[in-house]
Amino acid sequence: MKHTRIKDLLNATEYGQQVTVKGWVKTFRNNQFIAINDGSTLGNIQAVVDFNSTDEALLKRITTGAAIAVTGPLVESLGKGQRVEIKVETLEILGDSDPEKFPLQPKKHSLEFLREIAHLRFRTNTFNAVFRVRNALSFAIHQFFFDRGFVYMHTPIITGSDAEGAGEMFKVTTLDFDHTPRTPDGKIDYKEDFFGKPTNLTVSGQLEGELAAMALGNIYTFGPTFRAENSNTTRHLAEFWMVEPEMAFYELEDNMDLAEELLKYVIRFALDHCPDEIEFLKNRLSEEEKNKPQAERSEMDLITKLHFCLDNRFERLTYTEAIEILQRSKPNQKKQFKYLIEGWGSDLQSEHERYLVERHFKKPVILTDYPADIKAFYMRLNEPDEQGRLTVRAMDILFPGIGELVGGSQREERYDRLVQRMQEMSVPTEELEWYLDTRRFGTAPHSGFGVGFERLVLFVTGMTNIRDVIPFPRTPNNAEF
Amino acid sequence: MKHTRIKDLLNATEYGQQVTVKGWVKTFRNNQFIAINDGSTLGNIQAVVDFNSTDEALLKRITTGAAIAVTGPLVESLGKGQRVEIKVETLEILGDSDPEKFPLQPKKHSLEFLREIAHLRFRTNTFNAVFRVRNALSFAIHQFFFDRGFVYMHTPIITGSDAEGAGEMFKVTTLDFDHTPRTPDGKIDYKEDFFGKPTNLTVSGQLEGELAAMALGNIYTFGPTFRAENSNTTRHLAEFWMVEPEMAFYELEDNMDLAEELLKYVIRFALDHCPDEIEFLKNRLSEEEKNKPQAERSEMDLITKLHFCLDNRFERLTYTEAIEILQRSKPNQKKQFKYLIEGWGSDLQSEHERYLVERHFKKPVILTDYPADIKAFYMRLNEPDEQGRLTVRAMDILFPGIGELVGGSQREERYDRLVQRMQEMSVPTEELEWYLDTRRFGTAPHSGFGVGFERLVLFVTGMTNIRDVIPFPRTPNNAEF
Repeated sequence: MKHTRIKDLLNATEYGQQVTVKGWVKTFRNNQFIAINDGSTLGNIQAVVDFNSTDEALLKRITTGAAIAVTGPLVESLGKGQRVEIKVETLEILGDSDPEKFPLQPKKHSLEFLREIAHLRFRTNTFNAVFRVRNALSFAIHQFFFDRGFVYMHTPIITGSDAEGAGEMFKVTTLDFDHTPRTPDGKIDYKEDFFGKPTNLTVSGQLEGELAAMALGNIYTFGPTFRAENSNTTRHLAEFWMVEPEMAFYELEDNMDLAEELLKYVIRFALDHCPDEIEFLKNRLSEEEKNKPQAERSEMDLITKLHFCLDNRFERLTYTEAIEILQRSKPNQKKQFKYLIEGWGSDLQSEHERYLVERHFKKPVILTDYPADIKAFYMRLNEPDEQGRLTVRAMDILFPGIGELVGGSQREERYDRLVQRMQEMSVPTEELEWYLDTRRFGTAPHSGFGVGFERLVLFVTGMTNIRDVIPFPRTPNNAEF
Repeated sequence: MKHTRIKDLLNATEYGQQVTVKGWVKTFRNNQFIAINDGSTLGNIQAVVDFNSTDEALLKRITTGAAIAVTGPLVESLGKGQRVEIKVETLEILGDSDPEKFPLQPKKHSLEFLREIAHLRFRTNTFNAVFRVRNALSFAIHQFFFDRGFVYMHTPIITGSDAEGAGEMFKVTTLDFDHTPRTPDGKIDYKEDFFGKPTNLTVSGQLEGELAAMALGNIYTFGPTFRAENSNTTRHLAEFWMVEPEMAFYELEDNMDLAEELLKYVIRFALDHCPDEIEFLKNRLSEEEKNKPQAERSEMDLITKLHFCLDNRFERLTYTEAIEILQRSKPNQKKQFKYLIEGWGSDLQSEHERYLVERHFKKPVILTDYPADIKAFYMRLNEPDEQGRLTVRAMDILFPGIGELVGGSQREERYDRLVQRMQEMSVPTEELEWYLDTRRFGTAPHSGFGVGFERLVLFVTGMTNIRDVIPFPRTPNNAEF
């Protein structure tokens, strides 16, 4: 008999119909009540066995983690917590799960422990919920851009360019460490490598995205990017997914509007499509925070926080205005910041970003027009201000609890200024002639931004460690599974 | 004034409205008619300049590839080929394009030439159409799976496992070739490498996908995969995108049904959403084929071929049946095959696949139950046939002109048989303990398949070289841009 998904049965109203369910045993109580989950939903269906008429040896094999198939009529449930249940007529064990060996028991496991068995953690409620929300957010991103006529570009993962300057890169090679080919002067002979030159894993698809935008108008990327940085924090991964839209004829204001619209769209989409999962994650977070000192607990619960971001226009201000606020702020005056704000020009630290978002404005903040010195070569230069200070048309979107979620800019479309900036910042122009071609032939104002996808998932799920929102995290000394 | 997308204007009916368009000049005829494209659609809008009232120096800058902004009323067009046009009142050059230097002139360029300037080929009609179809196919895949409750999994790109056996792998490292750390016995000390062990780029997300499917039920991946194989063909890339669904409780029949449904869904989606692009590509292909000898031309044009795949049930037969057909076939009898079919057991070559699809059945074909010896360790073993021959529950979907588009199987869910197969095929079990855990704890029948995304795009666009359907192809000795 064809099996039915539990998600469909939990919504079914046709009592008495004969159904088959296949899934994994979550719990088995009183030799009678089996909670079964098949991954189609966070919810379980209850299957009721008549233990008098069931072989004892079979009952013993109904253990947490076992895969089973049950068939019987769908009936109204008299127990509380569910509307329907299955009255088991036949039960088959598809795969046993030895309770002495199965690492997941029906009790609370620490997230640290679950990270070590990442191949099994999908079977917990928490990760079932997290990865379902991640899925909804991914789809929402594609839906948002498709509806607006953006073209999804698969920019290359292996790149011959190391000029993007966004961070340390991983080498990609087929050379043998023990027998490296050498040129006559003793250097590595990359002509013998697979691509005939040194190659790396991409840190961003932006530059290639710009090439496409300067022809197809509006494009976006959504793919893996890499940083070979030795950062062991709750916010960094060596391999993570980024969303990078790039729009011809957009100036910075348009760019900010689009980013704000996108973030609100995808958060709303997750709330609409994963209400049970987010409710579960809200409760999980509240439980977790009970163990924290009062001062460190969130002011808002997860769902309130998500709605708060939807209902408020993101605060927009310049870096210069932000520095003034931070200089006058209590934690700066009282020297409570680890890095005191001495004046204009320094980069903002996480503590400053969080002060602005969580304490001063109490909503998402878009900071614009950063000092040119601390930003990338491709950002559009503003005219110097009255004090002669140079800024660029950058924007960073800061979110509560997360810090920087989005980084973007209007791009420098003027050939001469771009070349000058590259030279000032020691970016080799000869390696980026193809990039400069977009400024040589029909250049036009354009803008774009990047969303760190895992940070977005962190925000929407209320999880606190980025390793818990990607299936198999890659971090220094960790590439398991 | 806010600009309007050309796609929206071409459908507009409100004549007389004042509009601004920003885009690139495709052609400029008679000092009067500018064809402008902004990437929002394959179509151009015509803007008509009054050359009497326009500065001559400005007119000279309206060259192919220049970025311009024009403003004026949208009026009914008297010329043929368009319904509306813009009567230009103001014209601004956003970015010049020196006709002496711009490599794309309004004439036919060879695909080989365009591959060398892949950063500019997006501006041609052909690649505008190809990448818009690619976008529609990508979105259709996500839509298909989202609607059916599948969870999109981002399986890892960097993998510590090299046991998948699907092909040669690229090494990922941060070690310095010139100063490789060594263990006391002189070997490379991978403890010093970023991940503390050797790592590679993934060849498939399947094994990790199975982990997720054995908890979330139905999942799919859609991401980049890699082969470090020195294949310089029109069908191979070193970096390409794969779609890999994996379904708990699916047997091979369900797997075939899903694959056929998916392929038909996405082809229909492309036809529905990109009619102009596919019409353009149909004509392009017909033009291209005019230069071929009659015998090599397609029997059907592109659109007929796509409909033909939609309208026919894919032919399903076993490898054993296929071998019998091939042995009896004319090209085998007349020794026209390069590799003659001598009997049961040998792998099929492209010429055999094409014979079955294009000449014998004249529709897509699903071959199942291949000899165990020529397939991967994780495929489910059938009982030996009456002659004692061993086959596995594999399926390959063969498409006209493309050959293998999909490869899949029911997985071996039985722990003992899986371990035995791994040992027979020298797959190290100790490296895949996590994979074996899915068979230890609640194992269940499950199946999945992989779609080579670029091959799908090839099929739907009618392009003939796989390098022309991915933005920046990576092949031996080529990682430009």
